Amino acid sequence: MIKIKYHPPGTPPATLHPHTEGSGKAPVLTLTQYDESTYSEKEFGNFADLMAEFDPLKVNWIHVAGLGDVSLLKEVAAQFQIHPLALEDVLNTTQRPKVEHYEGHYFIVTEMIYPDEKGRIAVEQLSFFLGETFLITLREETGRDVFEAVRSRLRSGRGYSRAKKADYLAYALLDATIDQFFPILESIGENIEDIEEELLSKPTKETLRQLYEAKRFLLQMRRASWPLREILNTLIRDDTGLIFQSTQIFLRDCYDHSIQIIDIIESFRDLTAGLMDVYLSSLGYRTNEIMRVLTVVSAIFIPLTFIAGIFGMNFNTDSPFNMPELDFRYGYLMCLGIMASVAVGMILFFKRKKWL
Amino acid sequence: MIKIKYHPPGTPPATLHPHTEGSGKAPVLTLTQYDESTYSEKEFGNFADLMAEFDPLKVNWIHVAGLGDVSLLKEVAAQFQIHPLALEDVLNTTQRPKVEHYEGHYFIVTEMIYPDEKGRIAVEQLSFFLGETFLITLREETGRDVFEAVRSRLRSGRGYSRAKKADYLAYALLDATIDQFFPILESIGENIEDIEEELLSKPTKETLRQLYEAKRFLLQMRRASWPLREILNTLIRDDTGLIFQSTQIFLRDCYDHSIQIIDIIESFRDLTAGLMDVYLSSLGYRTNEIMRVLTVVSAIFIPLTFIAGIFGMNFNTDSPFNMPELDFRYGYLMCLGIMASVAVGMILFFKRKKWL
Amino acid sequence: MIKIKYHPPGTPPATLHPHTEGSGKAPVLTLTQYDESTYSEKEFGNFADLMAEFDPLKVNWIHVAGLGDVSLLKEVAAQFQIHPLALEDVLNTTQRPKVEHYEGHYFIVTEMIYPDEKGRIAVEQLSFFLGETFLITLREETGRDVFEAVRSRLRSGRGYSRAKKADYLAYALLDATIDQFFPILESIGENIEDIEEELLSKPTKETLRQLYEAKRFLLQMRRASWPLREILNTLIRDDTGLIFQSTQIFLRDCYDHSIQIIDIIESFRDLTAGLMDVYLSSLGYRTNEIMRVLTVVSAIFIPLTFIAGIFGMNFNTDSPFNMPELDFRYGYLMCLGIMASVAVGMILFFKRKKWL
Amino acid sequence: MIKIKYHPPGTPPATLHPHTEGSGKAPVLTLTQYDESTYSEKEFGNFADLMAEFDPLKVNWIHVAGLGDVSLLKEVAAQFQIHPLALEDVLNTTQRPKVEHYEGHYFIVTEMIYPDEKGRIAVEQLSFFLGETFLITLREETGRDVFEAVRSRLRSGRGYSRAKKADYLAYALLDATIDQFFPILESIGENIEDIEEELLSKPTKETLRQLYEAKRFLLQMRRASWPLREILNTLIRDDTGLIFQSTQIFLRDCYDHSIQIIDIIESFRDLTAGLMDVYLSSLGYRTNEIMRVLTVVSAIFIPLTFIAGIFGMNFNTDSPFNMPELDFRYGYLMCLGIMASVAVGMILFFKRKKWL
Amino acid sequence: MIKIKYHPPGTPPATLHPHTEGSGKAPVLTLTQYDESTYSEKEFGNFADLMAEFDPLKVNWIHVAGLGDVSLLKEVAAQFQIHPLALEDVLNTTQRPKVEHYEGHYFIVTEMIYPDEKGRIAVEQLSFFLGETFLITLREETGRDVFEAVRSRLRSGRGYSRAKKADYLAYALLDATIDQFFPILESIGENIEDIEEELLSKPTKETLRQLYEAKRFLLQMRRASWPLREILNTLIRDDTGLIFQSTQIFLRDCYDHSIQIIDIIESFRDLTAGLMDVYLSSLGYRTNEIMRVLTVVSAIFIPLTFIAGIFGMNFNTDSPFNMPELDFRYGYLMCLGIMASVAVGMILFFKRKKWL
Repeated sequence: MIKIKYHPPGTPPATLHPHTEGSGKAPVLTLTQYDESTYSEKEFGNFADLMAEFDPLKVNWIHVAGLGDVSLLKEVAAQFQIHPLALEDVLNTTQRPKVEHYEGHYFIVTEMIYPDEKGRIAVEQLSFFLGETFLITLREETGRDVFEAVRSRLRSGRGYSRAKKADYLAYALLDATIDQFFPILESIGENIEDIEEELLSKPTKETLRQLYEAKRFLLQMRRASWPLREILNTLIRDDTGLIFQSTQIFLRDCYDHSIQIIDIIESFRDLTAGLMDVYLSSLGYRTNEIMRVLTVVSAIFIPLTFIAGIFGMNFNTDSPFNMPELDFRYGYLMCLGIMASVAVGMILFFKRKKWL
Repeated sequence: MIKIKYHPPGTPPATLHPHTEGSGKAPVLTLTQYDESTYSEKEFGNFADLMAEFDPLKVNWIHVAGLGDVSLLKEVAAQFQIHPLALEDVLNTTQRPKVEHYEGHYFIVTEMIYPDEKGRIAVEQLSFFLGETFLITLREETGRDVFEAVRSRLRSGRGYSRAKKADYLAYALLDATIDQFFPILESIGENIEDIEEELLSKPTKETLRQLYEAKRFLLQMRRASWPLREILNTLIRDDTGLIFQSTQIFLRDCYDHSIQIIDIIESFRDLTAGLMDVYLSSLGYRTNEIMRVLTVVSAIFIPLTFIAGIFGMNFNTDSPFNMPELDFRYGYLMCLGIMASVAVGMILFFKRKKWL
Repeated sequence: MIKIKYHPPGTPPATLHPHTEGSGKAPVLTLTQYDESTYSEKEFGNFADLMAEFDPLKVNWIHVAGLGDVSLLKEVAAQFQIHPLALEDVLNTTQRPKVEHYEGHYFIVTEMIYPDEKGRIAVEQLSFFLGETFLITLREETGRDVFEAVRSRLRSGRGYSRAKKADYLAYALLDATIDQFFPILESIGENIEDIEEELLSKPTKETLRQLYEAKRFLLQMRRASWPLREILNTLIRDDTGLIFQSTQIFLRDCYDHSIQIIDIIESFRDLTAGLMDVYLSSLGYRTNEIMRVLTVVSAIFIPLTFIAGIFGMNFNTDSPFNMPELDFRYGYLMCLGIMASVAVGMILFFKRKKWL
Repeated sequence: MIKIKYHPPGTPPATLHPHTEGSGKAPVLTLTQYDESTYSEKEFGNFADLMAEFDPLKVNWIHVAGLGDVSLLKEVAAQFQIHPLALEDVLNTTQRPKVEHYEGHYFIVTEMIYPDEKGRIAVEQLSFFLGETFLITLREETGRDVFEAVRSRLRSGRGYSRAKKADYLAYALLDATIDQFFPILESIGENIEDIEEELLSKPTKETLRQLYEAKRFLLQMRRASWPLREILNTLIRDDTGLIFQSTQIFLRDCYDHSIQIIDIIESFRDLTAGLMDVYLSSLGYRTNEIMRVLTVVSAIFIPLTFIAGIFGMNFNTDSPFNMPELDFRYGYLMCLGIMASVAVGMILFFKRKKWL
Repeated sequence: MIKIKYHPPGTPPATLHPHTEGSGKAPVLTLTQYDESTYSEKEFGNFADLMAEFDPLKVNWIHVAGLGDVSLLKEVAAQFQIHPLALEDVLNTTQRPKVEHYEGHYFIVTEMIYPDEKGRIAVEQLSFFLGETFLITLREETGRDVFEAVRSRLRSGRGYSRAKKADYLAYALLDATIDQFFPILESIGENIEDIEEELLSKPTKETLRQLYEAKRFLLQMRRASWPLREILNTLIRDDTGLIFQSTQIFLRDCYDHSIQIIDIIESFRDLTAGLMDVYLSSLGYRTNEIMRVLTVVSAIFIPLTFIAGIFGMNFNTDSPFNMPELDFRYGYLMCLGIMASVAVGMILFFKRKKWL
């Protein structure tokens, strides 16, 4: 559900420690360096080695996967003048997505929602530090990420990607993150349609659970997507010079996508809210139908049984007042006749009420 | 329901390929060219032939129906300096309606909702590129469109239409698109009234389904209409010189229509929301009534059957303590009397409770 | 319900034709002319005769009741430089209330809600063209209107009315229109109270229908009243010189009324929304009560009937194992005793559960 | 419920007549006059006598209780240049609270909610005219008001009160009015808690009525309190010089109180909205429980009764095919055995379903 | 629930008296004084002694725990030019959190929510007066507070804390207060998950109560947290010079936390609102299931019992018309056959309806 990670109250501000197992993964350090004509991609064992290759004339993308080594992070922070509070937010991996401008760089926190190796939906925090010559990205997990396509475009040198600066790279990665929402939303949409079909035909407890889970998941996606819009809006209206004019058109496109995502999520929320009512109504309809059958059967046969009961009484028929009808030659036929008319009367009554 | 078309995550920005069958239709190219005194309308096999006839002194309306030929679109884009991201949005035909200003032209995306040849409601994306001397419109399908009336007015030369520039043409087409909402809304309104009548008289499962579908359709219309307001608002406050003063009054009228549409949709949504409650209440009322019949019948006859049962027991009447009433001369009459008073008592009880 | 009048899609902008019967009434033309010392009120057969008497030094109120004669409206438009789009809005009588400023005059559309001759609530569009020396008002119907009181004040010359200009007349007419809301709202309020009383005491299907209709009517009043606020706000902040300073205080009062109306409507909507829940709850309570009676009666008598059934079985009592109790001297008393204890036990159980 | 007082439509603007009995009370005129060193408080029979004592060097608080004498009000209006529309609002005692600035004075309308002599909640309109040297207050009723504490502070000369001007007096009276909300809200809060307790333990029709009434009362308080915030906000940002700097800190405090009141009311509304659902759920739970008892009893005894019925049939046992079991030596025991197993089976079934 | 503390209406503004027992605790006065190199922490018996040690060159944190001694508070107010209205708000301990700027200091009211010694959630008002050289904090209770961690950081001199001024101390204390929300929210989240599980598996009355209590508690947290955002926003945009530039980055971090808290609370509210519907649906489903069992059992056995009843009637079989079937050789078998077919027919009917 809603994960909340936080320092125990009383922890000094800007305290750094990897406090959950997830964020404790040993980090994998990668430096991707390129300009229009060159491209290299290397893994490093420690940060000093990496910085030795740092080249301010190229775009330097430092990717840290796994947040388990606090001292490494401190080195990075020291090198790039990263504020301790920002670093703390990197480690507290349940931050709300946001963008903040610090002297010399942007700090962006976002949530990456993607299907993991096993096809389940994984949610993970992704942090960006975007400077003029560098982009640092930090994530919790070490496995497959959603950036492979960006990397392969950089490698091949196709398109604009290598001709542009770190700001365009940041855009490309943000875009890759945001694009993950669409297939997930599509599958939610199909899920909702299934639930809907089931609700109208045969509502079960299981459908209710599925519906509630869809609602909860939409709530989570909503919390991840609304702040995206603010982030992109801030970057588009950038006045720090860190974002080039030419990248802003791309960010605007990304912004459109975020609006579209929000729009779809809100529509889905609207639909699922309506479905809860449909469930209740559908149940109410079933109950109504069941009651009708019960009532019709009972109302016909209970009076008949009573009549049969009357004629089954054992009064001493010596007294002329006691059940003379039992000795009547056509008593039985008469009795059946009464029963038939009661039954027919009831059926007509129910027909008129449209219960039959 | 809600269609979502998107590139697989990881696709580079501004990638162009017709990725669904719908958008894969072979395009039909038409150039409609006019000024106050002349008018021509021609279909072309390829774009180069068309551009040969392009005349910057006239209004040039290039209409592309069917988005199946990406290379053609690229030619168009190259000719009119259209940004690759805009072209991508043309092909991703589930964009949210929007307007964007690019150097030298407006890019407008809107949704065309109209009854197709078979009378079903079709939804289709329509894209505009509005420059000073040209208007390019692109749609997914190739069949009948909603612009026939505009064309016939241009042909006849009646009214303002030919005296004005491309901006007025864009207005006229937008207006034609927006006007399609009204008859559709009208038929929804009638549909809602039917549902309402049914709900109050005889609620069935089918009514519930219809109601839910009406809600879903309104949600879709809402998503199509809200952005229209923003689009028109942007065009009215145009400061690029692409929209002439005299056209702005017409756009303001169009804006009023969009507000009216939104207003009606919201009212319908309000009504359908209320109807779900009416359905539930109506069902509750029926259940209540059914229960009342069941209860009245049962509560009268079950005790009577019990009494009859008593007198049907086979105790050996040799013992004076065993069922002496069976031998009593007026036993049967007494028994009927007891039964009658129980029945009358019950009926009075139900009368007082107003259940009868 | 929600009426929608519109041109068939494809109609050129600013097309004029009286397209429904209601708006097709032959118009009645009246010129009311006054200044501080004079007053005249005359009906005319055609517009040319009327214009012959037009006196720019006086206030000229031209009232057109019935929109059936399009050529007349065109004459009016030509005379007073009225834009064709405004004229179109006059004829499309389901516009949303609005105000627009055109060169030289205001164009105001509003909805007149009033009890007609037969006491039913009538809704009708009213259009104003307010210039410096003239006020043109146009309505659909020809019968009784809500302006009689304004006319009689003008006739008598009492109060400010004749000393002021056309803007004050426009205010007075708007005010007369808005004041119609109050008695209607009052009667809705009483209606809601009746429904409420019925819901809590004896909810029927009819009450549900009434409640739903009250909601629908409030929705309509809401759609008529919210835009009023905007209209008055625009007129108060007028910077065109068409509204004099002294009239603005009166418009502010009118604005307060519109806020009060909106406030009351929203409160009523809030109440009716709550009442739907009350209906459901009240039904639920009744069902609960009915079920309780059924359950108590059944749970007491069904077991008793079973016991009576046991002793009614016809086993051959020759075998000592077959129903020896039937021959037992006190068998019947014992049987009655068992029945009594079952009944008492059940009653105690229900007492403890508070169902009795 | 929601009272609406209004002039019959068609009444000229600024018409004055006391149109309901309540507002028809003969007025009581009081002049309270003070400066730092003097204090006097006097009742007057007519306004001329009062004005004879008016002293522009002191603070003059003219209090009119009872709005029955229109000519008196006209005298007051004439003396202090009060606009006829403002005077009309004083008499139409169901105005929405508001503040308006007229030349030379503020006009404030507010609602006084207070427990009257009999402990019931009374609601009454209170109007203020605040000039530089005077404060005129007008109320509908003549009995006890909520200003006694303010008067006694003025009399004693304690605190700031006498050293300050009319604006501070207006603040003190507004504050006294607003402070009345707190104990009323407190008692509503207790009422809601009682209802809540009842709903969860034993929901009755009466509880529903109380809940609905609490909702309705909160709606009324809401309508009285929201405008207060606007009023105080306007007074705090006063730029007319009528409110001294030193009073603004006090008004800010008053503003805080109004926000707090709104905040509490909204919370209460939220709670009562939730309680309606609790009522429905609580009823649903009871119905469920009742049904369970009915079902368990019926499902056990109806089959048993059927079995007893079988053995009660009167077939001629001469034929060997007719009910041989009746002559079977252990027939009765077998029959009881079957019955017992059916009963045990049913009980186990219900145990597994957790209905027992 | 919602506590409301207020002066009885009519109390003069800025009246000071400790009007509830809670705020009546005898105060404990502490002065914590530090600069970069020194640190002292001392308790005082009276305020004069404390002021003797006041050193404007250091940071002076005066902490007052317990608001029982009004004269002490007055001394403090006199010393630091605190406005009487602010002091009144300190004592009226149910203020809405807020910040106000007075000449020379900020006045901040906030709510401290924390688990008390016994692990229950305690809510308490905390007031700050932040001047250039001093910070005065006042709380109601005297026991354990949430500031111990801040104090211990100050003592040790680690981190920034001692190098900064009173504004940073105010930040640190606010931050400590706000951080208390997270663990509480976490436990609410777990609580909601438990309720959810219970609702879907076995809804009871107790679950409903828990759910309602969770909703109520969230409402309270919401009221405490929304104003925090405003407070922090005001402090961040400080233009009084009381907050240093370097502290603002920390306040921004604190602001982010407040947004995150609000975000989580709103999500929880959304979830609990959905759960109420789940409860109703879950109950409806159970009722439905119970009804189905009842209906199936009744509809099968009631007709069978009737048939048995028929053959149990005691008609005199002397007449050939009276129950000849009883004497028929295969009568009993036939009878059983009829019963079996009725039962099978019913079962098939229910199978087709999917009720079995």
